[in-house]
Formats: sequence, structure tokens, C-alpha cells
Amino acid sequence: MMAAAMAKVYLVGAGPGAPDLLTLRAAKLLARANIVFYDALVHHETLALAERAKKVAVGKRCGRVSTDQRFINRSLVEAAARHEIVVRLKGGDPMIFGRAQEEIDALVGAGIEYEVVPGITAALAASAQLGISLTRRGVARSVTFATARIGPDSAQSDWAAGAVAADSAVLYMAAGQAQAVAQALIAAGKPASTPVAIVESASLPEEHRIFTTLGALRASHLPPMSGPAVLCVGEVFRIEGAACNPVFQQSNEAAQLTG
Amino acid sequence: MMAAAMAKVYLVGAGPGAPDLLTLRAAKLLARANIVFYDALVHHETLALAERAKKVAVGKRCGRVSTDQRFINRSLVEAAARHEIVVRLKGGDPMIFGRAQEEIDALVGAGIEYEVVPGITAALAASAQLGISLTRRGVARSVTFATARIGPDSAQSDWAAGAVAADSAVLYMAAGQAQAVAQALIAAGKPASTPVAIVESASLPEEHRIFTTLGALRASHLPPMSGPAVLCVGEVFRIEGAACNPVFQQSNEAAQLTG
Repeated sequence: MMAAAMAKVYLVGAGPGAPDLLTLRAAKLLARANIVFYDALVHHETLALAERAKKVAVGKRCGRVSTDQRFINRSLVEAAARHEIVVRLKGGDPMIFGRAQEEIDALVGAGIEYEVVPGITAALAASAQLGISLTRRGVARSVTFATARIGPDSAQSDWAAGAVAADSAVLYMAAGQAQAVAQALIAAGKPASTPVAIVESASLPEEHRIFTTLGALRASHLPPMSGPAVLCVGEVFRIEGAACNPVFQQSNEAAQLTG
Repeated sequence: MMAAAMAKVYLVGAGPGAPDLLTLRAAKLLARANIVFYDALVHHETLALAERAKKVAVGKRCGRVSTDQRFINRSLVEAAARHEIVVRLKGGDPMIFGRAQEEIDALVGAGIEYEVVPGITAALAASAQLGISLTRRGVARSVTFATARIGPDSAQSDWAAGAVAADSAVLYMAAGQAQAVAQALIAAGKPASTPVAIVESASLPEEHRIFTTLGALRASHLPPMSGPAVLCVGEVFRIEGAACNPVFQQSNEAAQLTG
């Protein structure tokens, strides 16, 4: 058994889905890890890189908490008492909607050394797959990543203000409430004609894309999605013929409506 | 000589600086590349992965154009006529302030196949190195990445509106005009007491950090920086003792002033 004094906990971004979008640093760490706590969305090939590690599923998916966060925090601290290299493997990047701060605070509070290894966050993978840059010289100087919070309280629409003020916006964990999200963005001042690209399972073989507008999205039901999806909003996502990848799909409902 | 019909141009993110923050996919592509066009900030160890490739420096740095963008676009198209695997290696992520769209549009216009390989953008590296998550449950639901545009025209302050409306903001290429950026953010409504973390050369051995506030930054001269830097603004960057990494540096000027 290793001494706790030598232990280190690595909060590692597994990237958006495709196993080869992991960083070299993360791959090397996984190969050396003694124990890995992993999210539900981590690819099995990524997990397989941790050849000698005990693997513990903590089942978080799209922000929903399957395993209680306090239990995860406690598990990391306890693992550091028994293992030298502890890896907490998170989908995407740990520092973007990954609740990393709660784990970092628990580790720091327990006097345990940690390191964060960044990962490719879903917005970057979606942008790469679409062939549409999130910023564009002279057109889009800012991009906001946000999570929507839908509710009757108007104070809950702060996220929409941030998304509306930026030139481009990528909303995480929003596909399940896409109608309400579109309504909130329009109410916050974004034109109904603003283009929207929804990318599900970006970088994976089952990737699926929907191109629409905020106005059409507000009036339509999205087909159910089983993979994680980001909702990309902004003028840069307007499809201009040859200037983007040829894959172009639209939900039937959205196609029948105009913004 | 390869036929142009087989050619493909890969726009590849080299990551923030540290060579092991490259993706596995990018490393494999570099090993197979016939020719690599690379930015000035790409690490020499990353470039060395392209063992068999002709390497062409196109010298872009921090958004400044050393090689004319149209020349780069034309070079990529011409290279695709002579090489099977053409890599355009960019610092950070190609789709965040990387002018990728201009290169994509040129390739699509010439009928050349392309693929974008995402990279770790500087904001994610800075966040990881600081041990401060860009979003935080219940505190920060949105983060904006922006480039500042300082000038007498008030229409030029749109970038500030986007940065102010989000809970956290990361400003790229802003350190050289930090006083004016702080002034613009305060003028746009961000409190002068808002914490700021400036991270230069995130992930590299020469990394340097400055913690201050918008008010203090507005009134101070930053020491000159030779590496790329991001300016992180928001309540999440408030230093609360043990809850972040212990490295804590402050410019002498900023330390003497309060926001």
C-alpha cells in the first residue's frame, strides 16, 4: 500500500467522445493509474488505456447526478490514502460544466495534491465537426458557453443574457429542453431568425446534426436524443452552401416551420 | 507526386503550449504528414512529431498576422495539389480565434477535402493550471471567450457587453492592452472589484500568473509579457486561501492599488 503522502489525484478530461481526441498527457496518466473513477460517457477504449487500474463507475451523465457528488468527493479523498495515482476521468473538459471545483475543494481541504489535465470540450468538437468556426474575424469576436436554467423565476434567465450578448453561443445540456431554451433566448432579445446547429454525439460515429433557427426551434419538438448534445446559436451557424460540411439534417417539425 | 484527388488538408489544434497537451489524433496525423504549415507558437517537440514532413513556418502569433492570411490560404490549396496529407498546425484550438474559417472557405472553394482536429484552447489550460473551474454550480453558469477591440468608436465595445453579461470571461490577446480592457469592462458595467487572473504561457515551464482586480488593473501597468496570455475575469477567480493552487503572484503596481 502506498503512503498517502505520495498520492496525487488527477482530474482528467476525456474529451468529447472519440477516444483519439484524448491528450497525450491523459493517455500516459491512464496507463500509470492505480484507480480510475469515470463518468458514464467516457468511451470504453479510453477506459481500456488504464490497463492496471481498478475502474469505478460514478455514472454522471450530462450534468445529472447519478452518484452523489459528495460520495465522489469522499471516494477521491479515500482513494488517495491507498493509491499513488488516482484519476478522476470526466467527459469533455473538467473545468467546463464538470463540477471539478467541488472535487478540487474537497482534495485541497484534505491536503491532497491534485492536478487538472484539460480535455476537448464538446463545443470545440461540435465546431470542428461542423466546419464552422465559433469566432470569425470581423463577424464573431466572442463566444459564450452556458447551461440553460428554465423556470418561472425571471432571475433564472441570467444564462440567457450571457448567451444573447455574445456573438456565438454554445448551450450545454440544452437539447432536452430546446423549445424553452429557444423561447428564453428570443425573449432575451436574440432574433427568431438566428441560426441554430444542434450537434449530438459530436466526434462519434453516431453523430447527428440538426440545422434550424431559434424561431423554428421554439415551435417544434426535437426528436429524442440518446447522446450528449450541444445547441449552437449565432450567425456563424448560418449555412451558406459550400462554405461548410455537406451533412445537413433537419427535424421534420422544424422544416415545416419558419422563424 | 500524389494526385490532388487524394489530398486532404487537416486544420489541427496544437494545444496551449505543453507538447503533451496535443491530442492522440493530432500526434498520429503529424507522424503521417507530408507537409506542415505551423504557427510561431507551436512547441518544437510538437513539430518534431512530423518526422517526414516538410515544415513551413507561417509565423502567426497571438492574432497578429506575420504571414498574410491570403498567402496561407493559397499555400494550403497549392500544397493539396502536391501532397496527400497537408497539416495546418495552429496554436490552441483552430476554431477559437484561429482564423480557421478563412482557410476552410478557401479549401472548400477549391474543392479540397478538409478536416478540423480540435485542440486545447488557452482558456482551458489557464483554468486547469489555476485550479479554478470556469463554471461553478450555482455560481457561474456561463463563460465567454472574447477578443477585445479597443478604440474610440462605442460600437467597438460589443465584445465588452458579451464579456460582462457572462458569469466568467476569458479574454484572449488582451494583456498588451490590459488597462484599456479593464476600463472598457468597468464602463460596460462590471464592478471594479471583480477579480482578475492573468495567465501567461499557460502549461509551459515559464508560466506566470498575476492576480488582481479590474479596478487595480485599470490603474496599473502590467510588466511586459513575452508569451501568450489570457485575462480571466469573474468572481470564480477570487482567491480564497486553500481552495486554489498555491502559486500567487502579483505585479508590484497592482499590489499598491485597490479596485
